[in-house]
Amino acid sequence: MNPLLDDKTIEFLLYDVLDAEGLLKLPAFAKHSRETFDMVIGNARKLARTALFPVYREMDQSPRFEGGRIFLHPKMRDLYPKLLELGLAPATRGEDVGGQSLPLMIDSVAQTYLCAANLGVASFVILCRGPAHLIEAFGSDALKKKYMEPLYAGEMTGTMALTEPHAGSSLADLTTTATPTGDGDYLVRGQKIFISGGDHDLTENIVHLTLARIEGAPAGTKGISLFAIPKLRDGKPNDVHVAGMVHKIGWKALPSLIMSFGEQNACRAELVGEPHQGLMYMFQMMNEARIGVGLAAAATATVAYHEALEYARTRTQGRTLGQRGGPQIPIIAHADVRRMLLRQKAITEGALALVLLTARYADVAESGDERAKLMLDLLTPITKSFPAERGFESNALAVQIHGGYGYSSEYLPEAWLRDQKLNTIHEGTTAIHSMDLLGRKVMAKDGAALRMLLGEVETSIGEAKTAGVPEALVARLATAAATVADTTMKLAALGMGGDPEAMMRHSVDYLEMMSTFVVSWLWLRQATAAKKKTGPFYEGKLRAAQYFIETELPKIAHLAHLCVTAEDSYAKMTDEMF
Amino acid sequence: MNPLLDDKTIEFLLYDVLDAEGLLKLPAFAKHSRETFDMVIGNARKLARTALFPVYREMDQSPRFEGGRIFLHPKMRDLYPKLLELGLAPATRGEDVGGQSLPLMIDSVAQTYLCAANLGVASFVILCRGPAHLIEAFGSDALKKKYMEPLYAGEMTGTMALTEPHAGSSLADLTTTATPTGDGDYLVRGQKIFISGGDHDLTENIVHLTLARIEGAPAGTKGISLFAIPKLRDGKPNDVHVAGMVHKIGWKALPSLIMSFGEQNACRAELVGEPHQGLMYMFQMMNEARIGVGLAAAATATVAYHEALEYARTRTQGRTLGQRGGPQIPIIAHADVRRMLLRQKAITEGALALVLLTARYADVAESGDERAKLMLDLLTPITKSFPAERGFESNALAVQIHGGYGYSSEYLPEAWLRDQKLNTIHEGTTAIHSMDLLGRKVMAKDGAALRMLLGEVETSIGEAKTAGVPEALVARLATAAATVADTTMKLAALGMGGDPEAMMRHSVDYLEMMSTFVVSWLWLRQATAAKKKTGPFYEGKLRAAQYFIETELPKIAHLAHLCVTAEDSYAKMTDEMF
Repeated sequence: MNPLLDDKTIEFLLYDVLDAEGLLKLPAFAKHSRETFDMVIGNARKLARTALFPVYREMDQSPRFEGGRIFLHPKMRDLYPKLLELGLAPATRGEDVGGQSLPLMIDSVAQTYLCAANLGVASFVILCRGPAHLIEAFGSDALKKKYMEPLYAGEMTGTMALTEPHAGSSLADLTTTATPTGDGDYLVRGQKIFISGGDHDLTENIVHLTLARIEGAPAGTKGISLFAIPKLRDGKPNDVHVAGMVHKIGWKALPSLIMSFGEQNACRAELVGEPHQGLMYMFQMMNEARIGVGLAAAATATVAYHEALEYARTRTQGRTLGQRGGPQIPIIAHADVRRMLLRQKAITEGALALVLLTARYADVAESGDERAKLMLDLLTPITKSFPAERGFESNALAVQIHGGYGYSSEYLPEAWLRDQKLNTIHEGTTAIHSMDLLGRKVMAKDGAALRMLLGEVETSIGEAKTAGVPEALVARLATAAATVADTTMKLAALGMGGDPEAMMRHSVDYLEMMSTFVVSWLWLRQATAAKKKTGPFYEGKLRAAQYFIETELPKIAHLAHLCVTAEDSYAKMTDEMF
Repeated sequence: MNPLLDDKTIEFLLYDVLDAEGLLKLPAFAKHSRETFDMVIGNARKLARTALFPVYREMDQSPRFEGGRIFLHPKMRDLYPKLLELGLAPATRGEDVGGQSLPLMIDSVAQTYLCAANLGVASFVILCRGPAHLIEAFGSDALKKKYMEPLYAGEMTGTMALTEPHAGSSLADLTTTATPTGDGDYLVRGQKIFISGGDHDLTENIVHLTLARIEGAPAGTKGISLFAIPKLRDGKPNDVHVAGMVHKIGWKALPSLIMSFGEQNACRAELVGEPHQGLMYMFQMMNEARIGVGLAAAATATVAYHEALEYARTRTQGRTLGQRGGPQIPIIAHADVRRMLLRQKAITEGALALVLLTARYADVAESGDERAKLMLDLLTPITKSFPAERGFESNALAVQIHGGYGYSSEYLPEAWLRDQKLNTIHEGTTAIHSMDLLGRKVMAKDGAALRMLLGEVETSIGEAKTAGVPEALVARLATAAATVADTTMKLAALGMGGDPEAMMRHSVDYLEMMSTFVVSWLWLRQATAAKKKTGPFYEGKLRAAQYFIETELPKIAHLAHLCVTAEDSYAKMTDEMF
């Protein structure tokens, strides 16, 4: 039986490495304890293992789109109430809105179990939480009553309707319009694409939090407002239509739709907050959505790792090098299978650590800590990207370990490989996050966030030395920190010297350098914690740390070289040269 | 319209870089000319573009398995005769068996067009050719008449029935038995898995070239014999059954089956060649099969590259860095999209060059040239692996460039991503080929093959200098050659020093180092050829060479370090540490 995540690893990360208990000192979490944390996690884990995972494969199919409506897999009807019972939708919010003031860090663990078990089902937590939180933060009391409350209760789900077919990631170009009716409402017209959960048969109503341009608004991103558009208004259809279903290659239980608003010019919408502030509102909620992508990616990679591990332990084939005769051996005994498994372990547990660390900074930042906010902002593009990019590689290794069977839908790894690919694309592609990291996050406040990160790494280096982590690993981190600092300074100089194109050219290489550095740091911290214990579990953490720091971290020297020399092969390519 | 491959690139590789015309000097190819080469290629290209590619997507589904029989997609019935008309099944063989004595190099180009267009359909060339060639090489005249002739004519297809469910890549453990009947035939019993084309409704008969153990044969690989097992014998069923169909995730038009022989103990087989020589026979045909995998991988990556390129040229989104207002620009204008496209170009055209180079060595080796045979053997595991491993990465980039659309089956890149994954697995996994390369190919004859390769690279370096290829690129190749030589010597010393486990531990890293080196060499040769011409097409080749040599080649230093230090993280992992 696939455990989805390793419970002991979660415990290790939370309590031995990332000091989850430290959060209890913050007033916001004062009512909590390690026991309440473990109870939330335990409930999610149980539902994930006993209800969500067993039906994952049969739910790996597109919903039915019929008569303009979406019908989910029938199993969703049983699972949705059970999912709501966990109380996760409002969990991280205050008791005033029905929440538990749960740290996002703990909530993230619970969600990771659910996502690892059945991504499509688990997503419904977010379809309730995201829109509710947005209205909680920026909506009027009337809107809160109307939408936030039923959303947090799961009586209604919501969507984030940003993307339009002709504009994709370029939100400045969205053309959906909103015309004042004179009675305080607006009539919205336009089409949105890739709207997750845009329709379904689980709840009667759905609210679409939609970006649109009020007539006469300024061009570009400054003229965008946020609207709440219910599917049903006073129980009657509100001119909201499913124009089409995207046939996604994975993450199938969750419909991705093309939504059409106001085909009969009768789609009524309510403004959320102030006019022209829509994009700002949306982006204030984005950190959490992006950590959520990293979380889903880490979950998808981790469940596949455990599947491959179990397969490698039980599948026998061949013999050790030079051995003739005798029974076949489990394939885990072959060096290269161990390499693939350790690579998966290093990637997936590194990704988990990254997601939990970033969630923890979000928790501390929520209490008003400016330093934590800087770290959160810096780590968010990394947390969005690393689990997705390396997770896809890790998912491919799970297929590879299964050999020919891995290439068939009789086994599960191929499904997770498909699920994973979305994570490098949605909520901003890897390239977009690389520009966010290099162009904004590390440059903000004269590089304050990066200095803070480097300070944290220095502290960890000291702790690692004290704990007796092998000197070679510690030294690699120190070298890497110098590389990161130097590369960033040189890129900043390029930008300030008037060549922003050259500065930004290798932003994806820069992101990869930073990701590798940050995850290596987290492996150093895991090694430090493991050094204080004994037994094969902790030995394994030390080996994984060694693997990542010896195999991956040295690669950043070359990435840094590409960045600072602004290697110009593709910069010089014109369309006709391809 | 997707061109599948770029015709001008093919012309460039064949005639400007890899001297296809030089083959005309060999007696075997004396009747040919550039005109006959181009005619064969032109016919395949036309069929690929006009008939195979237009139905690729609709044929991307599993065949029907009903009443113990396999029914292919109905379109296959139209396409199969057209495929046969190209005459490719026997093309590389002599006129005595209906062939054209066509160089494998030219045949490979023709096949690459077909594979790029529609992998499942194109595979039927190989289902005829492979078994026919095996019987031509090792079968009696009677067997040739009975099987080889109809196979080359496409009146019958064949299979290579090696793998068994419990043994996978470990052929020594196969248990299918063959019992002499006393009249010269054998009764075969056993089960085989992953048998491509094991049943279908295209031809009346199918012959299974099956590895089995004659009763009383020695254990291990030395007791394996090769048998011809027809589906129908004298028009009657020969106790050959489809026990199941593997639901592959890609390459779907071609069925992959579990075949059961002798369930009623009435499956008659004829021995091919001598007893106990089966594996040797099979492996003598393997080079071509492995080049074939590299070819299919290069084709699958290339067609996706062209799809992404066309999408990037026509899809508009966003603006250049710092620009506000004005119309959206084609995404090819974004630096990171150009990076992804140039990466795909460098990988796919590098892979194509590698496949054609190796095929050319096979052609020269066929004429009895021992040096060419050494190079062929050395390059085969690289040609099997690089296009598959990097091709998968390239296919994922094609999805990424398509953004959210790439994640849907409304667009084609996702299908090629699925098709591609098989190539790192079948005909020996990447790990198996890495052991073949390091344990056998580079070590054979005291390293003669590697010395020859290094000599060739030195020659190319001289030519590059003369042609005026930038000194920086040339210097990188020289450094890399030294790294390769040094790493190999140190690994050999490890092995001879009594630690073969440490020597082989990083065989996959060694393979990656060698692959990157060889493909960089091929890019240097392309740069040299491009330097002699002018225009954007050749500029593009120079940029791609720069990209690969500046971005990829320096990575081998770290791979070499892992190899020679025998980095031991996964070597030390025990089962319970995971």
